[in-house]
Amino acid sequence: MIQLQVRTSGRQCFEDITQQVQQAVSDSEVQEGLCYLFCPHTTAGLTLNENWDPAVQHDMGLVLDDLVPQRPDFRHGEGNSPAHVKSSLMGVSQTLIVSGGRLVVGSWQGVYLVEFDGPRTRKVMVKVVEA
Amino acid sequence: MIQLQVRTSGRQCFEDITQQVQQAVSDSEVQEGLCYLFCPHTTAGLTLNENWDPAVQHDMGLVLDDLVPQRPDFRHGEGNSPAHVKSSLMGVSQTLIVSGGRLVVGSWQGVYLVEFDGPRTRKVMVKVVEA
Amino acid sequence: MIQLQVRTSGRQCFEDITQQVQQAVSDSEVQEGLCYLFCPHTTAGLTLNENWDPAVQHDMGLVLDDLVPQRPDFRHGEGNSPAHVKSSLMGVSQTLIVSGGRLVVGSWQGVYLVEFDGPRTRKVMVKVVEA
Repeated sequence: MIQLQVRTSGRQCFEDITQQVQQAVSDSEVQEGLCYLFCPHTTAGLTLNENWDPAVQHDMGLVLDDLVPQRPDFRHGEGNSPAHVKSSLMGVSQTLIVSGGRLVVGSWQGVYLVEFDGPRTRKVMVKVVEA
Repeated sequence: MIQLQVRTSGRQCFEDITQQVQQAVSDSEVQEGLCYLFCPHTTAGLTLNENWDPAVQHDMGLVLDDLVPQRPDFRHGEGNSPAHVKSSLMGVSQTLIVSGGRLVVGSWQGVYLVEFDGPRTRKVMVKVVEA
Repeated sequence: MIQLQVRTSGRQCFEDITQQVQQAVSDSEVQEGLCYLFCPHTTAGLTLNENWDPAVQHDMGLVLDDLVPQRPDFRHGEGNSPAHVKSSLMGVSQTLIVSGGRLVVGSWQGVYLVEFDGPRTRKVMVKVVEA
């Protein structure tokens, strides 16, 4: 298992970690196998989506803010309840297939750490296994 | 790894791929292990839900359309931002357990490719591993 | 594969199963590997989130109820369509990394079975693999 460090740039943002994950796969020298990703945070998540047009990330951020606004009846004292809910909506574990030493992803598909309560330095655990 | 082809029938629809995935497991001759599913698209996803009453899929479609409508402030030029958001809400990677040569799923639980920007022909990657 | 039994306490609730999952890892004697979790139900799900302040679960429940209310145009006859949708929003499969015989999770991160149509007795499948 290796640990990526990701510096996030705003309150809510999508950090493209595809190259760092691919580098972990290359370093492992696994040709055929699996790449497991895990985000050990409760106000961030992991997702895959388009990495060609950044407008997609902008639009996804708009929707997430709209779906999970602040509410007066929230009880969690830290004020970041929306970030917790968004984390569960995106998820924190993703499993990718590795073939020919490369992540199997679509042509315009990237792997994102999604920050919901930043900016912060976040961790992503990566485990690459031959299979 | 094998690649399923799935022809989707509408703009937004739930295509039950449980039998195709089970067939991939059977063809692999793995008795005890894992079955990894990955959807290499950014406007479709994978989910598990009830496959007995098709009304469940209808109702889920209603909710998803309601949660993620078109918006005038979307910036992505292709006009399919809702499909991208729904893809991340459902997810594109799922891992199932295999036991006795069969997928371990509930009695009324099926595996779905969920189309959000169809109709199209979609791919689902399937990797079955003994473990 | 082992099967956990989880008695859920309300219509919608978050049951912390972190200790039961860690026990399954300990019983397996796997030091380095993966822990696969699968929920074979269509009106419950699995998620990871904060397990220190129970207000987080309260707030997440508020949001989920607000996002997926009952609707007159639902067709599913059992009346639990919101529970089905919430299950797909949370997901039913999660994969955790095991290192040093312990689940790799954040300091305040727990594993939850999320009940959306309870109270009931639910199952969670756990498979721990050396890797």
